[in-house]
Amino acid sequence: MSKQNTPHITACLLICCPDRPGIVAGVSQFLYRLGANILDASQHSTDPREGLFFMRMEFQLDVLDKAALESAFQEQVATPLQMEWKIDYSDRRMRMAIMVSAYDHCLLELLWRWKSGELPVDIPLVISNHSVLEKECTAMDIPFHYLPVTAATKALQEREAIRLLEEHAIDFTVLARYMQILSPEFVSLYPQRIINIHHSFLPAFAGARPYLNAYTRGVKLIGATAHYVTNELDEGPIIEQDVARVSHRDTVEDLVMLGRDIERQVLTRAVKAHVDNRVILHGNKTIVF
Amino acid sequence: MSKQNTPHITACLLICCPDRPGIVAGVSQFLYRLGANILDASQHSTDPREGLFFMRMEFQLDVLDKAALESAFQEQVATPLQMEWKIDYSDRRMRMAIMVSAYDHCLLELLWRWKSGELPVDIPLVISNHSVLEKECTAMDIPFHYLPVTAATKALQEREAIRLLEEHAIDFTVLARYMQILSPEFVSLYPQRIINIHHSFLPAFAGARPYLNAYTRGVKLIGATAHYVTNELDEGPIIEQDVARVSHRDTVEDLVMLGRDIERQVLTRAVKAHVDNRVILHGNKTIVF
Amino acid sequence: MSKQNTPHITACLLICCPDRPGIVAGVSQFLYRLGANILDASQHSTDPREGLFFMRMEFQLDVLDKAALESAFQEQVATPLQMEWKIDYSDRRMRMAIMVSAYDHCLLELLWRWKSGELPVDIPLVISNHSVLEKECTAMDIPFHYLPVTAATKALQEREAIRLLEEHAIDFTVLARYMQILSPEFVSLYPQRIINIHHSFLPAFAGARPYLNAYTRGVKLIGATAHYVTNELDEGPIIEQDVARVSHRDTVEDLVMLGRDIERQVLTRAVKAHVDNRVILHGNKTIVF
Amino acid sequence: MSKQNTPHITACLLICCPDRPGIVAGVSQFLYRLGANILDASQHSTDPREGLFFMRMEFQLDVLDKAALESAFQEQVATPLQMEWKIDYSDRRMRMAIMVSAYDHCLLELLWRWKSGELPVDIPLVISNHSVLEKECTAMDIPFHYLPVTAATKALQEREAIRLLEEHAIDFTVLARYMQILSPEFVSLYPQRIINIHHSFLPAFAGARPYLNAYTRGVKLIGATAHYVTNELDEGPIIEQDVARVSHRDTVEDLVMLGRDIERQVLTRAVKAHVDNRVILHGNKTIVF
Repeated sequence: MSKQNTPHITACLLICCPDRPGIVAGVSQFLYRLGANILDASQHSTDPREGLFFMRMEFQLDVLDKAALESAFQEQVATPLQMEWKIDYSDRRMRMAIMVSAYDHCLLELLWRWKSGELPVDIPLVISNHSVLEKECTAMDIPFHYLPVTAATKALQEREAIRLLEEHAIDFTVLARYMQILSPEFVSLYPQRIINIHHSFLPAFAGARPYLNAYTRGVKLIGATAHYVTNELDEGPIIEQDVARVSHRDTVEDLVMLGRDIERQVLTRAVKAHVDNRVILHGNKTIVF
Repeated sequence: MSKQNTPHITACLLICCPDRPGIVAGVSQFLYRLGANILDASQHSTDPREGLFFMRMEFQLDVLDKAALESAFQEQVATPLQMEWKIDYSDRRMRMAIMVSAYDHCLLELLWRWKSGELPVDIPLVISNHSVLEKECTAMDIPFHYLPVTAATKALQEREAIRLLEEHAIDFTVLARYMQILSPEFVSLYPQRIINIHHSFLPAFAGARPYLNAYTRGVKLIGATAHYVTNELDEGPIIEQDVARVSHRDTVEDLVMLGRDIERQVLTRAVKAHVDNRVILHGNKTIVF
Repeated sequence: MSKQNTPHITACLLICCPDRPGIVAGVSQFLYRLGANILDASQHSTDPREGLFFMRMEFQLDVLDKAALESAFQEQVATPLQMEWKIDYSDRRMRMAIMVSAYDHCLLELLWRWKSGELPVDIPLVISNHSVLEKECTAMDIPFHYLPVTAATKALQEREAIRLLEEHAIDFTVLARYMQILSPEFVSLYPQRIINIHHSFLPAFAGARPYLNAYTRGVKLIGATAHYVTNELDEGPIIEQDVARVSHRDTVEDLVMLGRDIERQVLTRAVKAHVDNRVILHGNKTIVF
Repeated sequence: MSKQNTPHITACLLICCPDRPGIVAGVSQFLYRLGANILDASQHSTDPREGLFFMRMEFQLDVLDKAALESAFQEQVATPLQMEWKIDYSDRRMRMAIMVSAYDHCLLELLWRWKSGELPVDIPLVISNHSVLEKECTAMDIPFHYLPVTAATKALQEREAIRLLEEHAIDFTVLARYMQILSPEFVSLYPQRIINIHHSFLPAFAGARPYLNAYTRGVKLIGATAHYVTNELDEGPIIEQDVARVSHRDTVEDLVMLGRDIERQVLTRAVKAHVDNRVILHGNKTIVF
């Protein structure tokens, strides 16, 4: 049950079902009969009035017939226990797109984590409404798509972005300080598949100019929030947040500079959690195992 | 210029004036001519468009004629430089009242800090709208005044509270989880003289039930905010804030429990800063030196 | 599988065994057959070279025959899987002794957490080599035993302390700033049953006068460490640590004062983890679920 | 007295002298007579037994004759008050060298901060004993010098490094994870002019393999320390430290990965403080204003 690297394929199973006795036993017996070794398991039960049970189980198999595994699991475990579930395998890396405007810090952080092996994803493309970060991407052999946008061309530009995301079979998209609000049509195509970094400690200072508003209010901490994008602006399920201390000495420009460090850290942790299949949605909240 | 304890009296001068050359020189020359030793000094200049200068200077004098010092300072320094200023002396401890409802954690924390010598104040009285914490106060020989309140008796109760605060010549009042909203009349009597602890990271979750709202929103950090009370609810100048990490595992009750620790720390730090004359108001913000 | 309060008894099972497939399945099937509902489960596998598996499982039973449960578990699960294990039940509170010298902060913090219900233990006695904190204990109806100690009487004093701990059937003892080094004989009687708070970030500044040494070295953070006591001074398994920021402005006295807050927090968290059966020893390290 | 940007030259004065009345007055009067506007001032007095006074004053002058200013200051202020002092001017950027081995994270962080304008220095060269990071430097037009080193060639390699540092008139050098111990001769040439990042919370885990040692000891926090290099290994004056939480789940490799983030942050803050002339040595400790 070790988490050390091996040539075996590992699988990660996420489930949600009504809470009742026998779920852990049912899943773990199923896996044991297949000869699987459970590497890690986490579970969460909600308030009994709601009565939901969530679990993440990571396991290893020597021989793995994915289709057979999945249909047997559906029949023997998921159907009897009324489960919603999904499974991912380690022999397939997630495909991550990045959308960015002109600020480089979040983009460079993600690219460095990817290059260093910390983020085990493929990055088939970066899309930007500005051209200034092209060199940073192409230096790492990542295709850069410059899709400028105006109020008039927004619908067209989004259509082109969607075409690119589909063409490259993207699993999820990171808005790494993409200073555009995506249309409801765009967002609806990718539920729990778009991660945004907002430069405030939400729900404080939602919307535009959070650092200016934080400065004006005189807060003693500034923050950043990574969340899934929904069609309620800055209201999507929060994945990760953090803060840093500021004082009366800090100008708005200082807040922007200090905030960059928090944004980089918070976005990275959220993307890692997503890539590791550690995030499950629960209404408008997240369970992060 | 040491901050070690001595039998000398130390004084703490706070000033605010239009920014221009010569302020530090003017004040420090004045003090030098009196034979004062500057123990500590901090300064802050605002944005040049606003052009304000703030300074805190702590100094020591062998012989100290307070009235003479103050009138000379007014004439020789404050008037020429258009200063607002105040001065406090170490031979007089501030007189702090505490208002509390039924939660004990903030009250006990303040009392323990006072007893251990960390908070160099006198506490002539505690006022509560509940009787449950009487024993905790009288055990430390602090008079406890039980002033129950209903919607019908609120005006009367506040009048009695004000009478007590005046009778005991209180310098400032701490609302240590006092679960009543003070009337505008009460608040107006004590500008920058009432410190409240709000159990959220303001401006997030202002108003009632912040822990429930934090739970519902699914935030990953909860916080507390100490601020001066104004007649805009939870909108007063922030003195101190802090946060703690929470997760999907935490129930509302867990947030309440974890929050108590942050509330105690944040309120303590704010009260200490106030008692040390380290807080200056700047509009609706604070400078905390 | 909810963790909400119910009239049922809950049990907490801790296990350690060689890592192999089928452990989770074996334990969860056993519990399912008994009709138990798993409330929470955590597991940890070590490096494959070491090949150990650790698990904590909290479960609920309507009808609970403890002896029958335990002998069935031994026979059906523990023996086949070569497990070391222990089980605790929620209908029996742990019995915690506190040993303290003259500093009050850790003692008062534990007593307040106990009184507020945060620490679900019984505290049958406090032992101190000073008499100064007697009133604080008796005010809460906790028997206080004054056992002064000198080099000459140390063996005798420890014998009396041990007698008291045995007489009161103590489960574990907290050294809440008890400024005496326990003899090897004392320590050997209580493996993983004595928790100490050391006022530094171990292994930095082990031994005496850590705040003075931290001041002299000019560190920018000070810390505290809660650990199980072993016969290697300040070398026992670490349960919890934390730090706070300091600067050149802080005197040794300031470090002592700031340190008190960290000590209180760190000790509280460690004691809670112990009381919740969330700590398993792994060599000289701890697994804290 | 604003800290806003202006076309004026600003100067930063650091002083150390015996503590006595009149120091602030003397310096501020001197500057006032020159027409200087004090932008920021910080001071620190040591324990009276030691009796030292330290001050940092930042000021602005319309017309600035540096030589005249400095000789007048020496004669009128520094000599009478027995000051050691130094002054730096904003019209001259510090010249920073970076020495690095094969890890990229600290180097890339410094280069990114420099490129974004956060670190107002010139970087005339990077020296490395490996060639792998050449592309990262030349992509930013920073000359990269590959100076491999073996036990046999160490003296020679250091001589070449010193030659390069001298040729480029370097003000200070950052060891951005340079995995070589500099010789006493090298270190002696650059007192308070070499900044190292050590990957532990010193004094814990000095020397080699700190993450392995932290893992083995089972600490619950890991840290990083930026310090000036002296000839006592890992014993130089500490400029900045920070920590991050870890658990039993983290392997040594995880600690290395988590540690990279702390190293980057801590090194950046230390270098910024040095570049802003906010660090004064006080024996083997630092005052960081």
